[in-house]
Amino acid sequence: MPRLTLPQAEQLAQAILRRHGFSEAYVQSIAATVLAGERDGCSSHGLWRLLGIVQTLKAGRVEPCAEPQVHDQAPGVVRVDARGGFSQLAFAAGLPLLADKARTNGIAALAINHCVHFSALWIELEALTELGLVALACNPTQAYVAPAGGSRPLFGTNPIAFGWPRAGQPPFIFDFATSAIARGDIELHRRSGEPLPPGWGVDRQGRPSTDATEVLDQGAMLTFGGHKGSALSTMIELIAGPLIGDLTSLESSAHDAGSKALPYHGELLIALDPQRFLGEQAAQHLARAEALFMAMQAQGARLPSQRRYAARANSLEQGVEITQTLYDDLQALLD
Amino acid sequence: MPRLTLPQAEQLAQAILRRHGFSEAYVQSIAATVLAGERDGCSSHGLWRLLGIVQTLKAGRVEPCAEPQVHDQAPGVVRVDARGGFSQLAFAAGLPLLADKARTNGIAALAINHCVHFSALWIELEALTELGLVALACNPTQAYVAPAGGSRPLFGTNPIAFGWPRAGQPPFIFDFATSAIARGDIELHRRSGEPLPPGWGVDRQGRPSTDATEVLDQGAMLTFGGHKGSALSTMIELIAGPLIGDLTSLESSAHDAGSKALPYHGELLIALDPQRFLGEQAAQHLARAEALFMAMQAQGARLPSQRRYAARANSLEQGVEITQTLYDDLQALLD
Repeated sequence: MPRLTLPQAEQLAQAILRRHGFSEAYVQSIAATVLAGERDGCSSHGLWRLLGIVQTLKAGRVEPCAEPQVHDQAPGVVRVDARGGFSQLAFAAGLPLLADKARTNGIAALAINHCVHFSALWIELEALTELGLVALACNPTQAYVAPAGGSRPLFGTNPIAFGWPRAGQPPFIFDFATSAIARGDIELHRRSGEPLPPGWGVDRQGRPSTDATEVLDQGAMLTFGGHKGSALSTMIELIAGPLIGDLTSLESSAHDAGSKALPYHGELLIALDPQRFLGEQAAQHLARAEALFMAMQAQGARLPSQRRYAARANSLEQGVEITQTLYDDLQALLD
Repeated sequence: MPRLTLPQAEQLAQAILRRHGFSEAYVQSIAATVLAGERDGCSSHGLWRLLGIVQTLKAGRVEPCAEPQVHDQAPGVVRVDARGGFSQLAFAAGLPLLADKARTNGIAALAINHCVHFSALWIELEALTELGLVALACNPTQAYVAPAGGSRPLFGTNPIAFGWPRAGQPPFIFDFATSAIARGDIELHRRSGEPLPPGWGVDRQGRPSTDATEVLDQGAMLTFGGHKGSALSTMIELIAGPLIGDLTSLESSAHDAGSKALPYHGELLIALDPQRFLGEQAAQHLARAEALFMAMQAQGARLPSQRRYAARANSLEQGVEITQTLYDDLQALLD
């Protein structure tokens, strides 16, 4: 399998993006995103994403040179209109004002509107935790998942992510889909003909189904955690949809109109400043959070990002390996 | 079974609280809380709670006349020191400033510290949604639950709740424990000798266990939703613990020191003002939230609070029925 150093992988990504007409700001920020995914062992958010990015551009479903507009919506709220571009530039444009507001007020929100979205949320949470901020992020996607008790696609895979800064250590970060499983995993079962584990999907009558084709084509995926996961997914639809004046997953699917482009919707981030909550006692209380992490690890529990950080350490030393097929597909995007 | 009108139930609760020396402000607010639980069919948060409330008082583990102190911590943060009293008065004391800050800034937080806590969170979220605010609330409890991959009690049952105001309708509210099941349900299995369903608990080696006694006495309960629920529970420990300068569930258990009193810890609420996020377009976007709720119900999914609202309508007409045992126990508290 071809092995690339991280600079080689980044240059390849940049060359592909430049070749297809993205402005230099998008070339840099999108390449950094897919590189971070590949580096951290999240290949579904890695270089492979460039195929969908170029496809979305060719379908006319993303603006390659959109300049995000930052609105100072309220003392605690930043809005960034991505104007149909990928989310990365909008996030970068809103970050300084979000951090300022969080430091002034203790808590602040960033609403990103009208963006095309493929990024894992942990990348943004790392940027916030590096500033010493605690942060939450979530977004709808497109309608694949039925609410608990339902039978039709309505919710997206709706990720939610949380970050907590740690002194002298990588942050505590989790980032998970509220669907029971990624859609890609159900696709893999369809291809292999293997039955789905229980809890992944329902048929068109809302009955539990282990048939991947039935779940994908007639029924729906399910959320994780039964009615509790379904409630969380509803919350994400609401606070990262109507609350910020942007699309729900069902509306995003309608907007897509079968083009199979990367999804177009909004995103909500909330940042909290421990210094502002705790004042002079911040260090003392953050040390108690460290005691919690130690107690988790002492009984064999893994912190959510540990696997990702291990992959990162490995990639920094040895670069990344991708399949020959992916390498060839990426090279073809340079022609 | 004895049936009480809602005024009768409230007067009974008030008489018990007065008899045991709570200040009139606590008499009113605690009685309103247990009445709301009983009325909405949540008997575990209903009149039955008075037994634990009086027991906690007799054990010297709650201040019956504490006056909460409100601190304007930051432009977006209210802190209320409950000074060892029950959480109700602290929430009521902080609510006006929280609402002001949310309306001014778009987003604001209320940190309640040093309170004794037994209230369901939906009661507070109803107060916030009545003011037109979207709200989130969460708190640690005491250590009963192992992190995913662990084997020892570390997290609490850590509830999380969310409320969304609806014009002319009761709000959309969910309120659930991040444990797979309530501790009381495992106690019931211990008494009946029935095996636990899979996913509720682990033995002392962290292996799945269906033995209630083993789970309660040597192992630990589990979160809902595997590693995702465990991640959420960790977040609640952090943001409603160290972030607000208050106890984690493990620290709350240590503070309890075997007294079996109602738990002492903090609580975090976040309020968001849709008017401030959306301005003149608020009505249009909130209507899209209604479309989401209709789409859920059209496919047979229930909104999270529907059962509670149905019980409420019934109780308002017919009063509430409690067991003779509970009625006798409550009467005994009047002696």
